[in-house]
Amino acid sequence: MQTFALLFYFFEKCCNIFEIELILWCFCSKFAKIFFVMPTTSERGKLMPQSPIRKLVPLADKAKERGIKVYHLNIGQPDLLTPKVALDAIHNIDRKILEYSPSDGIKSLRVKLAEYYKRFKIDVTPQDIIVTSGGSEAVNFAFMSCLDPGDEIIVPEPAYANYTAFAISAGAVIRPVVSTIEEGFSLPKVEKFEEQITQRTKGILICNPNNPTGYLYTRKEMNMIRDLVKKYDLYLFSDEVYREFCYTGAPYISAFHLNGIEDNVVLFDSVSKRYSECGIRVGALVTKNKAVKESVMKFCQARLSPPLIGQIAAEASVDTPADYMLEMYNEYVERRKCLIDGLNRIPGVYSPVPMGAFYTVAKLPIDDSDKFCAWLLDEFEYEGQTVMLAPASGFYTMNNVGRNEVRVAYVLEKEELKKALTVLEKALEAYPGRK
Amino acid sequence: MQTFALLFYFFEKCCNIFEIELILWCFCSKFAKIFFVMPTTSERGKLMPQSPIRKLVPLADKAKERGIKVYHLNIGQPDLLTPKVALDAIHNIDRKILEYSPSDGIKSLRVKLAEYYKRFKIDVTPQDIIVTSGGSEAVNFAFMSCLDPGDEIIVPEPAYANYTAFAISAGAVIRPVVSTIEEGFSLPKVEKFEEQITQRTKGILICNPNNPTGYLYTRKEMNMIRDLVKKYDLYLFSDEVYREFCYTGAPYISAFHLNGIEDNVVLFDSVSKRYSECGIRVGALVTKNKAVKESVMKFCQARLSPPLIGQIAAEASVDTPADYMLEMYNEYVERRKCLIDGLNRIPGVYSPVPMGAFYTVAKLPIDDSDKFCAWLLDEFEYEGQTVMLAPASGFYTMNNVGRNEVRVAYVLEKEELKKALTVLEKALEAYPGRK
Repeated sequence: MQTFALLFYFFEKCCNIFEIELILWCFCSKFAKIFFVMPTTSERGKLMPQSPIRKLVPLADKAKERGIKVYHLNIGQPDLLTPKVALDAIHNIDRKILEYSPSDGIKSLRVKLAEYYKRFKIDVTPQDIIVTSGGSEAVNFAFMSCLDPGDEIIVPEPAYANYTAFAISAGAVIRPVVSTIEEGFSLPKVEKFEEQITQRTKGILICNPNNPTGYLYTRKEMNMIRDLVKKYDLYLFSDEVYREFCYTGAPYISAFHLNGIEDNVVLFDSVSKRYSECGIRVGALVTKNKAVKESVMKFCQARLSPPLIGQIAAEASVDTPADYMLEMYNEYVERRKCLIDGLNRIPGVYSPVPMGAFYTVAKLPIDDSDKFCAWLLDEFEYEGQTVMLAPASGFYTMNNVGRNEVRVAYVLEKEELKKALTVLEKALEAYPGRK
Repeated sequence: MQTFALLFYFFEKCCNIFEIELILWCFCSKFAKIFFVMPTTSERGKLMPQSPIRKLVPLADKAKERGIKVYHLNIGQPDLLTPKVALDAIHNIDRKILEYSPSDGIKSLRVKLAEYYKRFKIDVTPQDIIVTSGGSEAVNFAFMSCLDPGDEIIVPEPAYANYTAFAISAGAVIRPVVSTIEEGFSLPKVEKFEEQITQRTKGILICNPNNPTGYLYTRKEMNMIRDLVKKYDLYLFSDEVYREFCYTGAPYISAFHLNGIEDNVVLFDSVSKRYSECGIRVGALVTKNKAVKESVMKFCQARLSPPLIGQIAAEASVDTPADYMLEMYNEYVERRKCLIDGLNRIPGVYSPVPMGAFYTVAKLPIDDSDKFCAWLLDEFEYEGQTVMLAPASGFYTMNNVGRNEVRVAYVLEKEELKKALTVLEKALEAYPGRK
């Protein structure tokens, strides 16, 4: 430091501040040239979130290497069999050339999807449907087409972690409104939304039924959203991939059921969850908004086409027999009961009763769910078993919210779920960060 | 309220120009609120190019409706059969659940691809390979990961049109260096590149063998690029999806063959063209640059996984028998000869001899290729036939370059190609905009 001060003094005598800066800058850039010859990666890439679940994967792998059985309550991949009609369609493909499909998807699939939506009183035509590589691409293209850098969308949280990733991709900003476990993750009041509205607000994003909370929005809540959308001229981005999973008899209300905002709605869909075929990567972006459609189509054309074989499987899947769907439904109903009852019986644990999807967010008597989830895999075992959970930190953009919450998925058989619950109970007794 | 307050201020003060502008602006925004209730789409979406080929599709459809046979010389979809090993792999899938695959692709596919690259003396490990949804996604994720808004890349043109689309998606700017048909589309001189280099230059993008020109870069040219990359610390984005299509005995020089810039290279690949399976959407991003890999992986995780069934087909395709590859190769060699000879025999037409890929860019005796290509479909026929060509305007970011050029693909059988050439000759005789 002293040397630097002396040097500076010397320079000060000879030249003015501007010259010193110039010399220092020259030195630094030469230095950089010599030592850091790699071009830098993008700021956007640095901002992109790393999934808190992905960070745990190496720990889970190591636990398995030690011979520990890991119950995966962390994932969104159903364990149910893919419908036979889908597998048959793949086995029976009689094409000789696996060609590009149209950029907006195979027409017969779009026709089938329009028929499927009619079952849910969603009145759209095949022209309103653009087939995407999974629901993920639908979110991505919607944000790229509707949001400019600096534009904002309001998102009730906890929310699916990758919305943030796609918002960052588009340079857009998520303004969260936090729903709480104490209120069963119901939609925050209208004032909370209006507090977040600025000149840059372009839309509201909901997921209904909700991942991660399993919440199903009521008619009253959906009407509130409709009124906000109308009042402030917003897009309503609505992720409805879990519509087949509603358990309480309460109605599923699609964004397309809301009167007067038909042109504001951009719906995200996917065949992944409902037919247990996440790997085929077929989703859809559904909108009646002509300008959005035109813009999205440009992004679709740039990536040429969605996956051909996945589309063939998806088209067949729409004809999945009713008994498959009913069996799946009944299975989830039972698992849900088993999981939620089991969670709430563990001292200090609380989970609201989820109304849809196949997740719940539970509050645990712990200091920090990131630490707890890592500890489960790294240090704990009960009779050679442990559980993997998703820390809720990944579902909030704000820091220090929901630190004691985890997402639990019920994509395991009942007997496995019961064992996993026992392990969780023992873990909570042993955890040093228990509160 | 604000408007009234401002109006009052206006009357009180007898304002200056700035104040009037402010008041007008307030009025206009109120006005907009009343009449234009839809939120706007993104500027980025508006900037995204519309493919000049796509614009011609409705005209081609109408021509077909009129009973006219259209020879498609415009497309990049090979007409050759997909290898039997790929189709068999799909027919024999014995999975019961079509699950997500890892975000960077199935490991066994990445191992196979590393083996495949070894055949071309490209020394990469499975850890250097990230499987993407087609080559398109590789370009997209590379730009998103390496380029910030305002960053620039230098691209020799004519170039594949969708590079521009992905650059716009990332907010990056393409600085073109134009290669000319007179010089056989060889790489412009080093000075032309250096003229385009600014503080914001982050990379050079090449396509080798080239789409649309069929040019294959020489050792000397590749060394020049290497030196530029080194001198200015740039990324070298190298699209090498046509490596199997090199016809002259001249060596294919991969970006990974260049010494001293191993960490600067981001290679794009795809199984689409070489195994005639464009529809399965499997490509790869290959890089040894750790920071780029880490950033790209975040984008991969956000979209969860590449298509599962496509990956299974792609993995099998790597074992396509040598006789299939040879037969395909010989077929393209013959088509290429047939097309180029035929084109150069038509008065006023000139095409250099392409060394690779399955395209050529030809100069026609016409005023404007956009007009000519539309006219072919809209107004012309010869014995109930016409041809569809890709206007070269889509391959240049600068206006008024290559106005009399078209891209011609040879993805039709020789007999069909001959007929198409006859139709083209007749069309050029009849075209009112002939020059």
